[in-house]
Amino acid sequence: MEKPYVVGIDIGGQTAKIGLVDARGNVLVQTVIKSNDTDNYEIFIDNLCDAVKNMLGSKYSLSEIRGVGIGAPNGNYYKGTIENAVNLTFGGPRVIPFAETMSKKIGLPVRLTNDANAAAVGEMTYGAARGMKNFIMITLGTGVGSGIVVGGYVLYGHDGFAGELGHVTMVRKNGSLCGCGKTGCLEAYASATGVARTARELLEATDRKSVCRDLPAENITSKDVFEAAMEGDELAKEIFSFTGNMLGEALADFVAFSSPEAIVLFGGLTRSGDLIMKPVVESINNNIMPQWRNKIKVVFSQLKESDAAILGASALAWEVKED
Amino acid sequence: MEKPYVVGIDIGGQTAKIGLVDARGNVLVQTVIKSNDTDNYEIFIDNLCDAVKNMLGSKYSLSEIRGVGIGAPNGNYYKGTIENAVNLTFGGPRVIPFAETMSKKIGLPVRLTNDANAAAVGEMTYGAARGMKNFIMITLGTGVGSGIVVGGYVLYGHDGFAGELGHVTMVRKNGSLCGCGKTGCLEAYASATGVARTARELLEATDRKSVCRDLPAENITSKDVFEAAMEGDELAKEIFSFTGNMLGEALADFVAFSSPEAIVLFGGLTRSGDLIMKPVVESINNNIMPQWRNKIKVVFSQLKESDAAILGASALAWEVKED
Repeated sequence: MEKPYVVGIDIGGQTAKIGLVDARGNVLVQTVIKSNDTDNYEIFIDNLCDAVKNMLGSKYSLSEIRGVGIGAPNGNYYKGTIENAVNLTFGGPRVIPFAETMSKKIGLPVRLTNDANAAAVGEMTYGAARGMKNFIMITLGTGVGSGIVVGGYVLYGHDGFAGELGHVTMVRKNGSLCGCGKTGCLEAYASATGVARTARELLEATDRKSVCRDLPAENITSKDVFEAAMEGDELAKEIFSFTGNMLGEALADFVAFSSPEAIVLFGGLTRSGDLIMKPVVESINNNIMPQWRNKIKVVFSQLKESDAAILGASALAWEVKED
Repeated sequence: MEKPYVVGIDIGGQTAKIGLVDARGNVLVQTVIKSNDTDNYEIFIDNLCDAVKNMLGSKYSLSEIRGVGIGAPNGNYYKGTIENAVNLTFGGPRVIPFAETMSKKIGLPVRLTNDANAAAVGEMTYGAARGMKNFIMITLGTGVGSGIVVGGYVLYGHDGFAGELGHVTMVRKNGSLCGCGKTGCLEAYASATGVARTARELLEATDRKSVCRDLPAENITSKDVFEAAMEGDELAKEIFSFTGNMLGEALADFVAFSSPEAIVLFGGLTRSGDLIMKPVVESINNNIMPQWRNKIKVVFSQLKESDAAILGASALAWEVKED
């Protein structure tokens, strides 16, 4: 009989979220453990295995699980490794054989990729990209991530690290510094941190009226800017249209690359709805080759945000072939 | 017995080049016909079929041919159509069922794609990309074309038209007009016409000394600029470094997309050798994410330029399955 469940694990800098998922994308049970309380990856993996078993309890068993899918920063799908993940306490400048180690400990196949690729697989399996074979997933969170699907498969490239669309250069002169070390990257603008920085810069550079001035500049978040925009604050609205416009410019170039059926937007910034969607769509059509104008769907993710990370990771495990 | 030959046809605005190719990439016989003497595509296809048969003569026969591969402007691989090819006299704003029509007339399977994709398949089959599964082919001719190979297959995208990397936007303000209708496209700079235009603009905007001033500005070609640069002309050398720098900026972004093993440069501009290669490689490494710095091979095509178009197109036909 086919094994009916998969386990999805989303590893972040602070916590790892773990869930048991069925073929329809229902998260049946879930749990969370800390990911920053050890610098020893073997201990962390032991903790993960214990957490999975505790989560299953007496209702479910390991023998019903087809495999484990993991989304992790700097995850390499080809090798199942986590490479140079400086934001993980057990990471650092080294290559960790994560999938192999965990597979041995838990006795199940383990697939691993980075979080944005996991999100793309999740969207294709359970979400807005069901039935699509060519689409681009853009995650707009603290940073900007991407998962590119071509012919029904995630594009991993030669080394397993394809799809770093947050790091194309959008501003070639005096661009903002990006976490990757470059300047002017898309991520330095179209992320939550980017929106907050744009706000700070605009407030400093001008005398314009804005409710954002009531906040201490160094504490402004993208949520503050969103709330101000919803109250009709002109400066805040302008920040969203600046951000959406730049994101649209980038997306138009991405279409020239892989000619996707759709672009799926996911993550915190998408909560701003039309404030971001309208300038994005307008900018894509202003910057795209005529043959694609008004033809590329741009949609928000359909995964429930609280479940999305687990669902995305879990979807990887459906690729495991039954014995 | 396996059929030992394929036919490659490269359709351009003036002529169509036709060749018979063996599995090692030898062009055994070849011929050329006009492609601009009829606006009726059926007549043109009749002419092509006659030319193929004449070329084979008595030495070769249609029964030894596995299939026909065609590279054509605006060729759609999925449908075998030529779509809205305004530069072909038999083209125009319509969709021509080219592969299907030719296949019926000649009695062989016919595969069709655009010229840059054909070049990529040619390079993978016979050239610098043999054994590679992930690379990007950039053709630097009158325009800038591209063929993207992912996991051993050309990336065609949702509609068959993926890989229009000549039309990513490199200059967002006051960019040069591109043939596609947009402004600031890579093609408006990193093509033979782009180099000539940059030369004209620099000559007009400054008083700087250059042997290029001896030519009537409106007639300057990229070849003139190349020859001037080889003689040590500073302005001409600067034009190549400007062009190479911009191309490198674009290529760095392309790497973030598909993480290729190599980038293969092909076409007229590559005859300028190190004049273009040096700034390209420098600029890639200045603009790329640290993880890829100095890791992406950049190489010139290894196909003999006179045979390349035929070889590229012919390589498509090897994909035809034997009956």
